[in-house]
Amino acid sequence: MARKILLINPNITQAVTDLMTTEARLSAREDTEIHPETARFGAEYIENRAEAAIAGHAVLDVLARNAGQYDAAIVAAFGDPGLSGAKEMMEIPVVGIAESAFLTAHALGRRYSILAVTKRLGTWFGECAEEHGLAGRLAAVRALDVPVSHISNARAETGRLLVDLCHRTIEEDGAEVVIMGGGPIAGLAREVAHEIPVPVLDGVSCAVRMAEMLIDLGPAKARIGSQARPPAKPTRGLSEELARYMERRD
Amino acid sequence: MARKILLINPNITQAVTDLMTTEARLSAREDTEIHPETARFGAEYIENRAEAAIAGHAVLDVLARNAGQYDAAIVAAFGDPGLSGAKEMMEIPVVGIAESAFLTAHALGRRYSILAVTKRLGTWFGECAEEHGLAGRLAAVRALDVPVSHISNARAETGRLLVDLCHRTIEEDGAEVVIMGGGPIAGLAREVAHEIPVPVLDGVSCAVRMAEMLIDLGPAKARIGSQARPPAKPTRGLSEELARYMERRD
Amino acid sequence: MARKILLINPNITQAVTDLMTTEARLSAREDTEIHPETARFGAEYIENRAEAAIAGHAVLDVLARNAGQYDAAIVAAFGDPGLSGAKEMMEIPVVGIAESAFLTAHALGRRYSILAVTKRLGTWFGECAEEHGLAGRLAAVRALDVPVSHISNARAETGRLLVDLCHRTIEEDGAEVVIMGGGPIAGLAREVAHEIPVPVLDGVSCAVRMAEMLIDLGPAKARIGSQARPPAKPTRGLSEELARYMERRD
Amino acid sequence: MARKILLINPNITQAVTDLMTTEARLSAREDTEIHPETARFGAEYIENRAEAAIAGHAVLDVLARNAGQYDAAIVAAFGDPGLSGAKEMMEIPVVGIAESAFLTAHALGRRYSILAVTKRLGTWFGECAEEHGLAGRLAAVRALDVPVSHISNARAETGRLLVDLCHRTIEEDGAEVVIMGGGPIAGLAREVAHEIPVPVLDGVSCAVRMAEMLIDLGPAKARIGSQARPPAKPTRGLSEELARYMERRD
Amino acid sequence: MARKILLINPNITQAVTDLMTTEARLSAREDTEIHPETARFGAEYIENRAEAAIAGHAVLDVLARNAGQYDAAIVAAFGDPGLSGAKEMMEIPVVGIAESAFLTAHALGRRYSILAVTKRLGTWFGECAEEHGLAGRLAAVRALDVPVSHISNARAETGRLLVDLCHRTIEEDGAEVVIMGGGPIAGLAREVAHEIPVPVLDGVSCAVRMAEMLIDLGPAKARIGSQARPPAKPTRGLSEELARYMERRD
Amino acid sequence: MARKILLINPNITQAVTDLMTTEARLSAREDTEIHPETARFGAEYIENRAEAAIAGHAVLDVLARNAGQYDAAIVAAFGDPGLSGAKEMMEIPVVGIAESAFLTAHALGRRYSILAVTKRLGTWFGECAEEHGLAGRLAAVRALDVPVSHISNARAETGRLLVDLCHRTIEEDGAEVVIMGGGPIAGLAREVAHEIPVPVLDGVSCAVRMAEMLIDLGPAKARIGSQARPPAKPTRGLSEELARYMERRD
Repeated sequence: MARKILLINPNITQAVTDLMTTEARLSAREDTEIHPETARFGAEYIENRAEAAIAGHAVLDVLARNAGQYDAAIVAAFGDPGLSGAKEMMEIPVVGIAESAFLTAHALGRRYSILAVTKRLGTWFGECAEEHGLAGRLAAVRALDVPVSHISNARAETGRLLVDLCHRTIEEDGAEVVIMGGGPIAGLAREVAHEIPVPVLDGVSCAVRMAEMLIDLGPAKARIGSQARPPAKPTRGLSEELARYMERRD
Repeated sequence: MARKILLINPNITQAVTDLMTTEARLSAREDTEIHPETARFGAEYIENRAEAAIAGHAVLDVLARNAGQYDAAIVAAFGDPGLSGAKEMMEIPVVGIAESAFLTAHALGRRYSILAVTKRLGTWFGECAEEHGLAGRLAAVRALDVPVSHISNARAETGRLLVDLCHRTIEEDGAEVVIMGGGPIAGLAREVAHEIPVPVLDGVSCAVRMAEMLIDLGPAKARIGSQARPPAKPTRGLSEELARYMERRD
Repeated sequence: MARKILLINPNITQAVTDLMTTEARLSAREDTEIHPETARFGAEYIENRAEAAIAGHAVLDVLARNAGQYDAAIVAAFGDPGLSGAKEMMEIPVVGIAESAFLTAHALGRRYSILAVTKRLGTWFGECAEEHGLAGRLAAVRALDVPVSHISNARAETGRLLVDLCHRTIEEDGAEVVIMGGGPIAGLAREVAHEIPVPVLDGVSCAVRMAEMLIDLGPAKARIGSQARPPAKPTRGLSEELARYMERRD
Repeated sequence: MARKILLINPNITQAVTDLMTTEARLSAREDTEIHPETARFGAEYIENRAEAAIAGHAVLDVLARNAGQYDAAIVAAFGDPGLSGAKEMMEIPVVGIAESAFLTAHALGRRYSILAVTKRLGTWFGECAEEHGLAGRLAAVRALDVPVSHISNARAETGRLLVDLCHRTIEEDGAEVVIMGGGPIAGLAREVAHEIPVPVLDGVSCAVRMAEMLIDLGPAKARIGSQARPPAKPTRGLSEELARYMERRD
Repeated sequence: MARKILLINPNITQAVTDLMTTEARLSAREDTEIHPETARFGAEYIENRAEAAIAGHAVLDVLARNAGQYDAAIVAAFGDPGLSGAKEMMEIPVVGIAESAFLTAHALGRRYSILAVTKRLGTWFGECAEEHGLAGRLAAVRALDVPVSHISNARAETGRLLVDLCHRTIEEDGAEVVIMGGGPIAGLAREVAHEIPVPVLDGVSCAVRMAEMLIDLGPAKARIGSQARPPAKPTRGLSEELARYMERRD
Repeated sequence: MARKILLINPNITQAVTDLMTTEARLSAREDTEIHPETARFGAEYIENRAEAAIAGHAVLDVLARNAGQYDAAIVAAFGDPGLSGAKEMMEIPVVGIAESAFLTAHALGRRYSILAVTKRLGTWFGECAEEHGLAGRLAAVRALDVPVSHISNARAETGRLLVDLCHRTIEEDGAEVVIMGGGPIAGLAREVAHEIPVPVLDGVSCAVRMAEMLIDLGPAKARIGSQARPPAKPTRGLSEELARYMERRD
């Protein structure tokens, strides 16, 4: 039976959802289905701590709306908003695109770099690596500093610049693996890999494979401790689906 | 002119807001006004990463609703949900009750412990110390493991047990300062301080003083970099006030 | 076409190779072939730094003997002897069973514990986590201290004791994920998972899935930097196959 | 009743004491009295580990001479000489100007830089941040490398250069807060804050506010453990006041 | 020609000086002369941060009084008071007894423990390891909690208890090397080594050998940077010898 | 009676053995005998993780062949291949040339740099410092990027370039001590020390003195724990001498 993966875009831009879905489907195995969902509320795109805080809620909302229907879920914004809450709340494996890229990078080399389209994204991505406890092997976060016409054009407009930045972080920072950070540039790594003399990773692609791997592994959901699903608790002001899930009326 | 501080309770329980407001007013200077606000949405109380993710959004929502009216704000749940986003989004200083207690502990000793009413809170509080980069001096997080009838009774029902735990963390972990973690036990430190042979801190009390101090200091709001207020960005599905603030229609 | 994975047992005991091969095949996808190889030289089993040093050479020797025939390789002793050298020397992905379990644990929780059959193994496993830069999330290494009649009986003789240890590290160390460390107990996690209230991982099982994932991902082999295949260099006293590989006469 | 704060200049230069007193009084609340004291022995100014070692003793000497007369004390040399000893020895809160600036920086941003007038000061300041366990968030220490005619002219002669350095550390190191390190440049931050696009902090100003805050908070003096006042111990060769205090004849 | 080493006791108790001199001479090579000096001022013994601050000055004072007469010097109180200042100020190598024991422990094993006669000493010793950047390999600091009639009787009265503590830290903390911390128990390690199943180190003994080694090595004194001898600076209130040395009238 | 030290060259090049022997004898005391041995198998020189893995085995092999004949041994390749295994396996002290230089650097300053002849060596040396737990004080690893005609000519061909690099790491990285990394440049430090304004260290020279010091100190060999000699274990395919030693037929 087919594996079913929920791909959550934490920002509200359908064009970014579509872009990431394309890359996810290119990466997935034949018998894996990718179901995209876009956040019901939030910002056009996410590049700082405030927007990420809102997105964290939006991610949980999408998850609750789809509870019981998927084998795994992917939080598909590079700073992994809401990920730690999603992992403990849901019965299925939930992975982030940053987390998946970081873990894959650890398997491929000893020092990795993250590339970002803007400086502010770079700050957020670096903090994400620290939050995951995976910054010890971070060679550098390198960010462009150029304007982009619209988030859905980021990949087209910054692709060549990011390739240049790849070469620089390999040469100057000793990066042994490079991660193209950010959902809106999903697929770029695939396109330019042949030009880059070390492995270059895409978060969406890594996350799809990590999700598949965890589905196959089938780890038990924690029944005690801080990864167990929280006990029922009264709520107010949440979407009907999220309220029902948190009050355990599901 | 009086200092005006917004005290935000990130959970939805008015009784906890009241309890914290009492402690805040006992701690505040005469010419400081404390204005409490309770989250518009969220959970009855917050003790894990999922509830904290939702609370992060709720905190930003309260801040946006009150933009321009206060000199500083306090995020008054011990894990500081939404704090980093609040700091960058707002023009005024925003402090957390955990953050303020941690910083004060650093000024008073070299190793501090955090006490928590439940194990799950303990996990969250420890992760909060790490997120703030202040866990290097953490002697221990110690948690009770007893049921509480209702969150608003936590202080009455666990007070003596927490005092016992204080003595143990001083003796066994070498704690030089002890922090009573959690909004719902606000004021307990004040009550039992005379029994404890090292300084014992309350998050709300520390946060009020830290907020007053920052108001007096009057640091410039960052105009560039990752602490600058984010540029306008289209949003969807947010409260009118939060949308207006993020789209910079304020 | 089938994926072909080389499973290297770094110790010289065929019974352990067989045990791990069984678990590997249970974990592998249908279209994945597992080809076991046992070290040509070394010790009956590996539990300290000296035996691991010899095993590191033995692993490279097995890899060179099989160069060009597999899509990925697994170093199947829990301390990952020779792994960093294997990664840089070979054109294919090489993963370790400890490394794979550590990375999987990072995706499933925030604090993991490692269980070991002997204290000395425990020391080695802990140092392995540090070497991989993944010890920041290590809750504890817990080791039994009982005699085992023969390494190939370790799983049968220590299984119940390890289950007890699982419960203790969850309760006392706050482990959110537990790793059953050691090739000779491969398969135990699968057998006892239903008794343990958090995810319990087996190195061989994780490594097979990690290897499959990396084969599918198909990252480029580094062409420059410290993960590139070393340039040819004269050697002496090595096996013909290893000499040929290092002198690049392959 | 007025708060009374002892401001200790650990070097022997009255002009520096005067400069810092001016800044302290500008920062203090109306009902706070600042009482300056200059070290009885030591060096003209302090910029290395040897001079700091002597200053540590001098600080304790000033404190003992003034025991029982103040509500709090400030060690006003940026490397905080003698501070940890002062905290444990005295019944009142004692804060350092470096410590206070570091803690305030943590409340205002995630990465801070320290500026120093000479390279050697920069080394000392960086080591001070490490000693306080607060170097994890240090973006950079940046130092000028120019001669100064006399320590009391440092502020006038280096002010513009330090402003330039501010801009560079914000741009190149990602500093979200900048600390003007060093007692002899006290007040410079106040003067140039409007030119700097992130918060810029002055140690003396932060210390005055931190001291006021701690007086208001009124934490108990530790009665046990390593922050308790040391038991009486015979001494030799100390000033009468310090001997009396250490032998507990006070 | 004989090597001449200055052995500085930073406390004022001649009996401790004598005890350490005995151990130093037992450890020294035949052609090494040990010249003991006792601090001119300070406390009967040193066990906290305040006494250590005074001792730091006293150590520099002894060094200046003996400038130009020795090939190396030893700071012989276990927390190494004044050591970093001494290293930069003097033209000869200066080592501490804690530092020397820590470095030797690193050469002999991967995890070391420190034993202390009192809890307060234990705190200070642990902070000393951190200050030297050598706490990463610290398994534990273990302290007795018994009264001692006089500091010069510490070794006799606590010897057996420390041996018991040795066994416990080896068994429970996994210590691979144990350091007997504290000048007043100098020589104990030599006496009980045969009872302890791992290497047990004495600070004085390690320091003598480290000093001899550095004399033989003959490293250049830094001429630039933060280890260079500080430039002349006016002083006040210091001993004639220390003033002369710091003002470079020597 | 003379101290006898076994100097092990882990690569197979006799010319490098000779060069290091010369430096070792210049460094040794009069009554110390240096006995060089070259690896029986391995690569012409060692500059990456794969070659180091093989060298680790070769080092143990040389040690077993010479068991019982020396008072101490030196592993004389800068990344210290096989060192941790050698320490636990042998009854005598075994030191590495990198380890010895790192420990000596800690005694001489607070921040040290390592210079390497190639980038790949630089990566290996930095990882070696981390493995020893001594990278906290590492200012920088600086590497040349020039071709060398043959490893035995490295010192002659790169000497001046390394001196330039010394000056740069002192100036730009704040190095207080510089280590000339690599066996093939043994003796260079001695030759150029007078040109360098901070202490400059040679691994071989430091290791000889560290070995002498440990022989004099005479620490007990661990009888329990992870530094005890491993119990007998069946082996296969090892040299007769190594097999005999590991099976404890010696």
